[in-house]
Amino acid sequence: MMKKIAILGCGTVGSGVAEVFYKNRTSIEQKAGCQLDIKYIYVRRPHPELPWQDKLCTDFDTIANDPEVHIVVEVMGGIEPAYRFVKTCLQNKKSIATANKELIACKGAELLAIAKQNHVNILFEASVGGGIPIIRPLHQCLGANEIDDIQGILNGTTNFILTKMIRNGMSFQQALDKASELGYAEADPSADVDGIDACRKICILASLAYGKHIYPEYVHCEGITHLTPQDVEYAKDWGGVIKLIAKATRCPQTRKISIEVAPMLVADESQLSTVDDVFNGILVTGDATGDVLFYGKGAGKLPTASSVISDVIDCAKSADTIDTLYWEDCTAQESASIIENWELLPVQSYLRLQLADRCQLEKIREIFSLPVLLARKNQPENEIAFVTPYFSPEQLNGILENLKKEGISLLGKIRLL
Amino acid sequence: MMKKIAILGCGTVGSGVAEVFYKNRTSIEQKAGCQLDIKYIYVRRPHPELPWQDKLCTDFDTIANDPEVHIVVEVMGGIEPAYRFVKTCLQNKKSIATANKELIACKGAELLAIAKQNHVNILFEASVGGGIPIIRPLHQCLGANEIDDIQGILNGTTNFILTKMIRNGMSFQQALDKASELGYAEADPSADVDGIDACRKICILASLAYGKHIYPEYVHCEGITHLTPQDVEYAKDWGGVIKLIAKATRCPQTRKISIEVAPMLVADESQLSTVDDVFNGILVTGDATGDVLFYGKGAGKLPTASSVISDVIDCAKSADTIDTLYWEDCTAQESASIIENWELLPVQSYLRLQLADRCQLEKIREIFSLPVLLARKNQPENEIAFVTPYFSPEQLNGILENLKKEGISLLGKIRLL
Repeated sequence: MMKKIAILGCGTVGSGVAEVFYKNRTSIEQKAGCQLDIKYIYVRRPHPELPWQDKLCTDFDTIANDPEVHIVVEVMGGIEPAYRFVKTCLQNKKSIATANKELIACKGAELLAIAKQNHVNILFEASVGGGIPIIRPLHQCLGANEIDDIQGILNGTTNFILTKMIRNGMSFQQALDKASELGYAEADPSADVDGIDACRKICILASLAYGKHIYPEYVHCEGITHLTPQDVEYAKDWGGVIKLIAKATRCPQTRKISIEVAPMLVADESQLSTVDDVFNGILVTGDATGDVLFYGKGAGKLPTASSVISDVIDCAKSADTIDTLYWEDCTAQESASIIENWELLPVQSYLRLQLADRCQLEKIREIFSLPVLLARKNQPENEIAFVTPYFSPEQLNGILENLKKEGISLLGKIRLL
Repeated sequence: MMKKIAILGCGTVGSGVAEVFYKNRTSIEQKAGCQLDIKYIYVRRPHPELPWQDKLCTDFDTIANDPEVHIVVEVMGGIEPAYRFVKTCLQNKKSIATANKELIACKGAELLAIAKQNHVNILFEASVGGGIPIIRPLHQCLGANEIDDIQGILNGTTNFILTKMIRNGMSFQQALDKASELGYAEADPSADVDGIDACRKICILASLAYGKHIYPEYVHCEGITHLTPQDVEYAKDWGGVIKLIAKATRCPQTRKISIEVAPMLVADESQLSTVDDVFNGILVTGDATGDVLFYGKGAGKLPTASSVISDVIDCAKSADTIDTLYWEDCTAQESASIIENWELLPVQSYLRLQLADRCQLEKIREIFSLPVLLARKNQPENEIAFVTPYFSPEQLNGILENLKKEGISLLGKIRLL
């Protein structure tokens, strides 16, 4: 039996999907257990420069109503019209393979439920970690585990910028310019550098691991725009690097989830400290398996296409909804009751302070239990940096406000992983 | 419907499987989509000290002939009686989840064929990489890829020994003693230190990736017993570490497979260079996805049990044989035609030589195209070390034999990854 595929969107990932499909078609069909072909590629307007002219289609309804189409690949990105298209396809009993993290992070629970009602699938391996297998390992290979913790470097653009700051001593702006030049940063880089992209991805992983939809709007999210080369130098003296970490942990006592995205000091001993450049790394801790790291290219045409096609194969093979890939919706009220308030969770932080006067050092030593002072080259006399004992963000902010009154100002603050 | 499980063997892994199963039973049953329970635990003789006395059974035939048993976990290790038991169970239409790498490396093709004939499964996620998901990602998540290359640190014992040699300057024997003391090495450590265990594992991965059974006896396999602290020091000066690497690559032109197990110099830039202690790391290169690294605990009670149970879940869920997990048998003659002769493949090597006389250095420079000399502390005057240009092992051995005639003797030889 021949199953037909439609691809919605023909940008980088869409054309990559077509390319990889035709390159490895024989082995893909063998793995899918049936013949496969691409029937349509949906584009908003005609693109005479594209190959596959016979497949281009500007009318979504033609695709939605074609009973020959079994599997729809959604690689348009963004919420609309992707959301409307995906919903319609699922209702018309077509399975979806999507790379759209925004769509899954915002509408995942609803779409998974619609897929289940219609006995089809919505799969999204490519939405997190690009070419790295992570969604399937999480719900399938680690199925015997309770997931205790997920820590990830989930955004390649910010990881590239931080790597440049660490290795080449660049400022944030210089490193961002370099990333733009190489095509690693978008014209508007805010979704990356403000941590929003990483936040969507950790929400998807946490929803899958903990069974409840975790919406990005309830997650504390900090970006990397305020980081300086000075912070990078102090981090090195401490024995680590600064990475944008997305993290979700289930508290064994309360069963609540603590989840956040923020730049963090990562010790050199952590496997995440050597995840550099545009690579992604995801460290999953299961109660039986311990730490498992998944590492690879978190973005790019062919890696992402590779993940999308692994989903296409599964869509083709599955006679019904894959029921381990599922989570329930979660109201705002429920969210408040299952997500820990990060402001109350004690963490250690790196602080960089500007003293008004060197004799204030005694006071600092007292408040922060005699911290070891960190050093950097050309350190101004009244600048100090150190790692605090455990404080909740709320407590620490209170302390910092009091210090400000005495003329001690905050230059940098980064929590420890 | 309730599906019953039998566990063959109640050593470390067997008791781990029972422990993890009862701990996470609710979520395991949810993922399996049915109720599950352990009915038998096969032991060769009574073990009054074990819990689960009501399940212990010393008669294999009782298990083999019980129609209630759907899934059999084989964690006895070794070929016999595991092979006979597994074959009987498959023929009696029971699915198998096994951690037995020796069994799969030697009898995989035959057992996979028997499973297929009987519409059941033989799954072996735990046979490679312990708790790291690698078998399923390889045939499923990376299904859109042609696998170009697999490089792995697949044996925790040897990796622990090498880490001790690198970090603490221990000799091989001191590090082996330490491993034995900590329970990381068996009473007879030869299967580990001679590379045999790693060889079985790379054969399983290569068979799966390339579709033909690669038998260990046709694979070049070197151990780590001859490595010295001096080699470790020179490797550091070169900019890397020595690791026991198992490697399988498909040559794009000939479609032949080059496969071997040997200690290799791994550059500090490689993700494998930081896989330390008892951890395993497997770097898979797909034509679309690029490099993907899987990292975690390669052995141990709970990690291995976690992988076995992920297979139990899949056995419970699958109505028929999973057909992507399959390879064909391969005769000795076919093996010769698909496996490259490693003696003819050019590689770069690190050499450590003892000169009879310092003036022989000129000759060495000439033969090896002016290599950069490596240095170590307390280096004897007539000892030199360097990295050669590309030579096949056959060529290089010829050169070394000629040098021997002139009184230049070989102290160390390690290929580069």
